[in-house]
Amino acid sequence: MVSKNQIKLISSLHQKKYRLVNQLFFAEGTKVIQELLDSKLELQHLYTTQNDFQSVSLSNRTQISDADLKKISALTTPNSCLAVFKMPEEQTIEQKGIVVALDDIRDPGNLGTILRLCDWFGIEQVVCSVGTVDLYNPKVVQATMGSITRVKVVYTDLEKWIGNSKLPVFGTFMDGESVYETNLPAEGIIVMGNEANGISEGIEAKVSQRIAIPRFGNLQKTESLNVATATAIVLSEFKRKTSV
Amino acid sequence: MVSKNQIKLISSLHQKKYRLVNQLFFAEGTKVIQELLDSKLELQHLYTTQNDFQSVSLSNRTQISDADLKKISALTTPNSCLAVFKMPEEQTIEQKGIVVALDDIRDPGNLGTILRLCDWFGIEQVVCSVGTVDLYNPKVVQATMGSITRVKVVYTDLEKWIGNSKLPVFGTFMDGESVYETNLPAEGIIVMGNEANGISEGIEAKVSQRIAIPRFGNLQKTESLNVATATAIVLSEFKRKTSV
Repeated sequence: MVSKNQIKLISSLHQKKYRLVNQLFFAEGTKVIQELLDSKLELQHLYTTQNDFQSVSLSNRTQISDADLKKISALTTPNSCLAVFKMPEEQTIEQKGIVVALDDIRDPGNLGTILRLCDWFGIEQVVCSVGTVDLYNPKVVQATMGSITRVKVVYTDLEKWIGNSKLPVFGTFMDGESVYETNLPAEGIIVMGNEANGISEGIEAKVSQRIAIPRFGNLQKTESLNVATATAIVLSEFKRKTSV
Repeated sequence: MVSKNQIKLISSLHQKKYRLVNQLFFAEGTKVIQELLDSKLELQHLYTTQNDFQSVSLSNRTQISDADLKKISALTTPNSCLAVFKMPEEQTIEQKGIVVALDDIRDPGNLGTILRLCDWFGIEQVVCSVGTVDLYNPKVVQATMGSITRVKVVYTDLEKWIGNSKLPVFGTFMDGESVYETNLPAEGIIVMGNEANGISEGIEAKVSQRIAIPRFGNLQKTESLNVATATAIVLSEFKRKTSV
């Protein structure tokens, strides 16, 4: 049984302000929950419609009905389980390796996909502008497919943070140099911009190297790539060139 | 004013079977609609809450209320316009250049993003298995951002189609050769597999060259890339190597 108060608490966690107040967030689905359980994150409570997750003690685990799961789920078609976790302490970013900097990424699916890409390419640090969608938004947690536990993410005044960094700063622009031809280093900041507006002016001024993904289609028409697919191509090029 | 019958017709177009029966589909948002209007597609009717799209004759254009738009829209937060188009005649794929073959891609956002990528990279032909999500699904149309007008897409028995082709067949597998190291031709079929199950057995048997996107992260953990981001990286590599 899940109490009315628990339903109320979890429903509130769909909103960022209540996630912050309670320092809690939730994840859904066996795969993602198992990855979070295997990480350093602390479980607050697990709700499941099955008799699974037996390694979780009964004091932390409640079997619930499909109807109750539907009440607390953020998914149109809920999975069989939902788990509430405590937010970890805020992390810090070190000035080394490749750091991905996100300038107001608004779509939760894009942020989640970018974190999954960073995980794949062994990039451990992501810095987000304060206008970037919240890491603990349920759709972001879902789209990361567990990568959220392996990539450090901080939110900060991105312009100031980049200004204080000594790493070279790469940004993608239509008029940049082909990323296929550019010499890419093993250390640097890669800025990816907002879905509609690209990289903001203040941050553009701090970019030391303008790169571009060459376009082969109809030059009059095809306007842009989705930011997650653009990130995929740029990270692939950085890794291809620096891992030999 | 939009009549009850029109609302009923457009609402039915949310479902594939009624799109097929009526040979109609719809798109939403100024940008996508404008791209479709600029293409060879034939407009059936345009509904807009603004006094825009003045180049469309009044017999083909109806100004409607926000409330009525909400009734016919497939979006949670509707745009200001929705346009119904006639489906074009079925197209045929030629055995030349790069052809992307999709083996049961189920997510509409993934299919739309892949078509946008093909458009960017100048790849004009896409062959889909019959189990792939419908091209005219409203979410696919939306995610293509207009690329739907510039990329030829056909649905067919993919295994048979590949079997009859003389082009070399590339497929991504965990145990494939690094796509960075592989010699890639200017002509060939690139197979991308289902989100959960990858490339199906019958089609795998027809793959002549197994390629892989090298992984740099924690090898125990990171399981896979999203199919759209994997497509981004593979297409980028093909184009980078064959365009010099």
